[in-house]
Amino acid sequence: MTNQLRAVQVAAPNTPPELVEVPVREPGPGSVRITVEACGVCHSDLLITAGMLPGTSFPVTPGHEIAGRIDALGDGVSGWRVGDRVAVGWFGGSCGHCDACRAGDAIHCRRMQIPGVAYPGGYADSVIVPAEALAAVPDALSAAEAAPLACAGVTVFNALRHTTAGPGDTVAVLGLGGLGHLGVQFAHAMGFRTVAIARGAEKEPLAHQLGADHYIDSTADDVAKALQALGGAKVVLATITQSDAMSATIDGLGRRGELVIVGVSPDSLTVNPLQLLNGDRTVRAHSSGTAVDTQDTLRFAALSGVRAWIEEVPLTDAAAAVERMASGKARFRMVLTTGR
Amino acid sequence: MTNQLRAVQVAAPNTPPELVEVPVREPGPGSVRITVEACGVCHSDLLITAGMLPGTSFPVTPGHEIAGRIDALGDGVSGWRVGDRVAVGWFGGSCGHCDACRAGDAIHCRRMQIPGVAYPGGYADSVIVPAEALAAVPDALSAAEAAPLACAGVTVFNALRHTTAGPGDTVAVLGLGGLGHLGVQFAHAMGFRTVAIARGAEKEPLAHQLGADHYIDSTADDVAKALQALGGAKVVLATITQSDAMSATIDGLGRRGELVIVGVSPDSLTVNPLQLLNGDRTVRAHSSGTAVDTQDTLRFAALSGVRAWIEEVPLTDAAAAVERMASGKARFRMVLTTGR
Amino acid sequence: MTNQLRAVQVAAPNTPPELVEVPVREPGPGSVRITVEACGVCHSDLLITAGMLPGTSFPVTPGHEIAGRIDALGDGVSGWRVGDRVAVGWFGGSCGHCDACRAGDAIHCRRMQIPGVAYPGGYADSVIVPAEALAAVPDALSAAEAAPLACAGVTVFNALRHTTAGPGDTVAVLGLGGLGHLGVQFAHAMGFRTVAIARGAEKEPLAHQLGADHYIDSTADDVAKALQALGGAKVVLATITQSDAMSATIDGLGRRGELVIVGVSPDSLTVNPLQLLNGDRTVRAHSSGTAVDTQDTLRFAALSGVRAWIEEVPLTDAAAAVERMASGKARFRMVLTTGR
Amino acid sequence: MTNQLRAVQVAAPNTPPELVEVPVREPGPGSVRITVEACGVCHSDLLITAGMLPGTSFPVTPGHEIAGRIDALGDGVSGWRVGDRVAVGWFGGSCGHCDACRAGDAIHCRRMQIPGVAYPGGYADSVIVPAEALAAVPDALSAAEAAPLACAGVTVFNALRHTTAGPGDTVAVLGLGGLGHLGVQFAHAMGFRTVAIARGAEKEPLAHQLGADHYIDSTADDVAKALQALGGAKVVLATITQSDAMSATIDGLGRRGELVIVGVSPDSLTVNPLQLLNGDRTVRAHSSGTAVDTQDTLRFAALSGVRAWIEEVPLTDAAAAVERMASGKARFRMVLTTGR
Repeated sequence: MTNQLRAVQVAAPNTPPELVEVPVREPGPGSVRITVEACGVCHSDLLITAGMLPGTSFPVTPGHEIAGRIDALGDGVSGWRVGDRVAVGWFGGSCGHCDACRAGDAIHCRRMQIPGVAYPGGYADSVIVPAEALAAVPDALSAAEAAPLACAGVTVFNALRHTTAGPGDTVAVLGLGGLGHLGVQFAHAMGFRTVAIARGAEKEPLAHQLGADHYIDSTADDVAKALQALGGAKVVLATITQSDAMSATIDGLGRRGELVIVGVSPDSLTVNPLQLLNGDRTVRAHSSGTAVDTQDTLRFAALSGVRAWIEEVPLTDAAAAVERMASGKARFRMVLTTGR
Repeated sequence: MTNQLRAVQVAAPNTPPELVEVPVREPGPGSVRITVEACGVCHSDLLITAGMLPGTSFPVTPGHEIAGRIDALGDGVSGWRVGDRVAVGWFGGSCGHCDACRAGDAIHCRRMQIPGVAYPGGYADSVIVPAEALAAVPDALSAAEAAPLACAGVTVFNALRHTTAGPGDTVAVLGLGGLGHLGVQFAHAMGFRTVAIARGAEKEPLAHQLGADHYIDSTADDVAKALQALGGAKVVLATITQSDAMSATIDGLGRRGELVIVGVSPDSLTVNPLQLLNGDRTVRAHSSGTAVDTQDTLRFAALSGVRAWIEEVPLTDAAAAVERMASGKARFRMVLTTGR
Repeated sequence: MTNQLRAVQVAAPNTPPELVEVPVREPGPGSVRITVEACGVCHSDLLITAGMLPGTSFPVTPGHEIAGRIDALGDGVSGWRVGDRVAVGWFGGSCGHCDACRAGDAIHCRRMQIPGVAYPGGYADSVIVPAEALAAVPDALSAAEAAPLACAGVTVFNALRHTTAGPGDTVAVLGLGGLGHLGVQFAHAMGFRTVAIARGAEKEPLAHQLGADHYIDSTADDVAKALQALGGAKVVLATITQSDAMSATIDGLGRRGELVIVGVSPDSLTVNPLQLLNGDRTVRAHSSGTAVDTQDTLRFAALSGVRAWIEEVPLTDAAAAVERMASGKARFRMVLTTGR
Repeated sequence: MTNQLRAVQVAAPNTPPELVEVPVREPGPGSVRITVEACGVCHSDLLITAGMLPGTSFPVTPGHEIAGRIDALGDGVSGWRVGDRVAVGWFGGSCGHCDACRAGDAIHCRRMQIPGVAYPGGYADSVIVPAEALAAVPDALSAAEAAPLACAGVTVFNALRHTTAGPGDTVAVLGLGGLGHLGVQFAHAMGFRTVAIARGAEKEPLAHQLGADHYIDSTADDVAKALQALGGAKVVLATITQSDAMSATIDGLGRRGELVIVGVSPDSLTVNPLQLLNGDRTVRAHSSGTAVDTQDTLRFAALSGVRAWIEEVPLTDAAAAVERMASGKARFRMVLTTGR
């Protein structure tokens, strides 16, 4: 290794990202250094570089959809070796001693670290991360395939596997973007009767291509009625950020159905007790997942053939990639590659 | 038996109840006739006699907290004998062939019958009900004790036993009225760390008397902060009808906590996705229960000593009892008795 | 319709089946008459015709994998019409008033009826069954496809969907016969990492053809070690009837793994407490399913493409079909067809 | 502190325990030193001092029911302070990086440490333990009360709270010894309908004193029939070490009932598939619990008033205490006290 490496830095909120040279560091106790091969661009990177996420200090190097190879181990790291192929997502480390950690529920660690917030992230040739943040990458997946599954992928896979829906049950995915296009694929591969809900008739062929059994165009149909015409949804997975559109699905839930939210929204939902009492419905949220959940996601993708649809861009074009993601034109995830 | 019996009738919406004589009828196939010993007065009786519940036809005889003895069996009734002590609650019969019934989920039967709505209710010397609506009453409970448990009791018992809370977990009961005073008792008897939330410092002794380990006065404290000071609630059981007060508890839920609604409210809750994502919280409702759930409630009450606090009034004073219930002065459930 | 129809009858235990003419009957209250199009031959038919199942009275007409069309409705039947395509399996009716039925758990009805035991079964041109035994057949499935799914299919589908395994988890199917070849297909379609276990290297290609990701030859490998080499099974579904071979898988279960038994065996399993404590393992059984479970099975088969591999034989050759099933040569289910 | 402390040592398998002086050590990184106030004597200590537990190296200081105060913190310990009252049980530390640990299931850590096996245990004035092994002790419990709850207590509390039984369901506790006398108390405090099963009519008053609603004398009654006469058990918690007596309860389980084993036995159970299919029964084991589970146990004991019945003996009489425990005469747990 040389002793200088490239990293994308944002110097201050809402300033453009720049590619800079930074010195190579050594991993501390409990941490590993990873040679980054690919790093996905996530919508939340925009929040981070805008300074909207508490705990962010500038300059910041974003990136929490990281895939690469371990190239150095800090003291006390067990279970990993130099050369191991690994991925790191939103879950970038946990304290190990808060109530949540002690109860084995590390995704709710009070001091959970996010790569690109708590420490420099994956828009770089190299990152240093705590060992508990590592997920093994199966041989069947390239680094560019693995990267977006480490955040977007685990978010929907983990939410879908933790519902009350069983094989053959009706699961609707609200939204067909970066999260939704993965949600439909995962739902199909899990054996659900899969419904995609999005805006516009032109997205119907895409929905079916991804594995949806049914498509609802929310600009033309009353979504709740359309879901009831299919017998009512056992689960609606909301991957969008419009609370009104989420609320509009509640009456489309069947008996003991669940609206599961994975998309953050500044606005509140409107939920009437009578809506919930009619069939004992649930509205809840599901937070991403830990490194083990990411590892399970990667394994399931390898097993089932689910893949994010990605556009690969060299690290040097990070600014353009971020802009394309922000514009909503990406089909469907942007992945930065380092050539390493 | 004579061939005339007393029944309370409401002739038209919002007209006063009158005691009338009605002819004794014979139970049809699949039904039984019950000599009513006691019948509770429920808040929803007010909605029914106001004509606000769809399906109500006047004149109406309210009453769905019925306890008495079987005195006649219709054709094809198995498993019950004349003389059996029984109770009937909100669940007054199911169709047996809709999707919910076939799936063993009769509380969501599309044609579920409610006593006092679908057929004459229990403000009378006698009622005829479908056999599937019957719950056996244990010897340890008098008819007046059993009656309010058949609706108010099962509503809170059944909701509490179907949460994710386990023994020692923190369960808060929001409201200390007809439902809430039972909820606190049941929560305590189930081994929960029980928190009562109500309006006013003067209710604290009552809360402790009912078994609460902690009391929060919602007129003095920020309820969410007070719950967090206790470590966060695993469950908040909302027995009230004010949606704002329900919404105010969401931030008091701990990790993977649930707000479980059993009280109907015309207004909507305000629920922010970020509130739910912070700890993967849930907002949901729980509908009363079937006759088997009522039977389980009665058995648990017999086992644990939980009892509704009641005021007994003769059937002849039904109008006064209803008025006292409506006024909020009842401590805590009014029960009509027939002297039979 | 003519007023005579064909039925296969066994006059006394272990006597050969004969094709006889029987008068057409009318369905009583709550029952429907079905024109049988296809009826599967199940191993348990051999027990029944040998007189080994309590409650069997001779002469007996076996058959509990029935698919056909409703041709007459008894009094009081709701939700079904003449012409509806339906299937009936092992669950042939429930009493509606025992503890299990009241609790919505009809598969454990104390008076559960089995077609071909409690009443004449499906080896015939026509059967009369209680309406609660009916499962709707989707258009995508022919009668011959639906028939074996009504017993063999629901047995494995319903067991697999009621385990703790989630998508990507390792699920092993023990046995590759009538139940097992469906089990592997269903496990694959549900997104499990699927392992087939059978006797002999020659079955490996079949296992992969059915969707297995891995194959274990129990004549060559130590099954428990082979499962541990794959990381340990979350679930082993035992579709065989040899208790020793079931016991031999317990040490192959991973952490919190389950051995789920659907195959009856006269011999007992040997289970050591230490084996169970090592990872908190479970040994349990799962009983077939109700008509709703069969309906779910049929829907899932239509959705996923899972099909029993069948050999179709005309009703007139029932004796030969039964013998072929008994011999173990059937690939994999025999189905009698009536030509109706 | 002086720089010598007392500890009980067993020099070689099956040699008598001796009280020796050992030098005070300092806690290493991630560990804490505890001033032991009380330490319970557990049956498994006999296995350990007999050299029967793999990983034991002599001389050995037994003791894994430890209660005391933290008196020194090693480097990197967070969340604990000198002076904190703590308990340590069978779970004496986990590696943090095996599959089980990463999945938040530390009780199945492949390198789980047991106090008194992996490192010197609690029959001493002082112990050093990894911080992840610590459970906070509530003020309401003395050290002598807390100690036996850290192993015997958590074993039965944790098993009971992780069954499918709900309030009012029938839970039978098999055995009335060190584990069983706690099991009956916990089952009662959790709101179960509690059945105690033991040998001899003379134990019936004890059973009721502990909170049992029913008692079965296994020397006089057929246990399975007696349980069925009570409606069938939802759960049988087997706290004994006789496999035959465990097997004998299976037919006493009700619909979807579970036999949950917490007692180790060298002999195997005999389990017939038909027994399990009759009601879809389960046989499984439940392993003790982690430090968090112990903490929950202690809190629940403080809340509910459940206490082990103990005999306190000074550390100097450890040999006699162990012998009394081995003889089966202890009523019901022996606790060594240091006077500190």
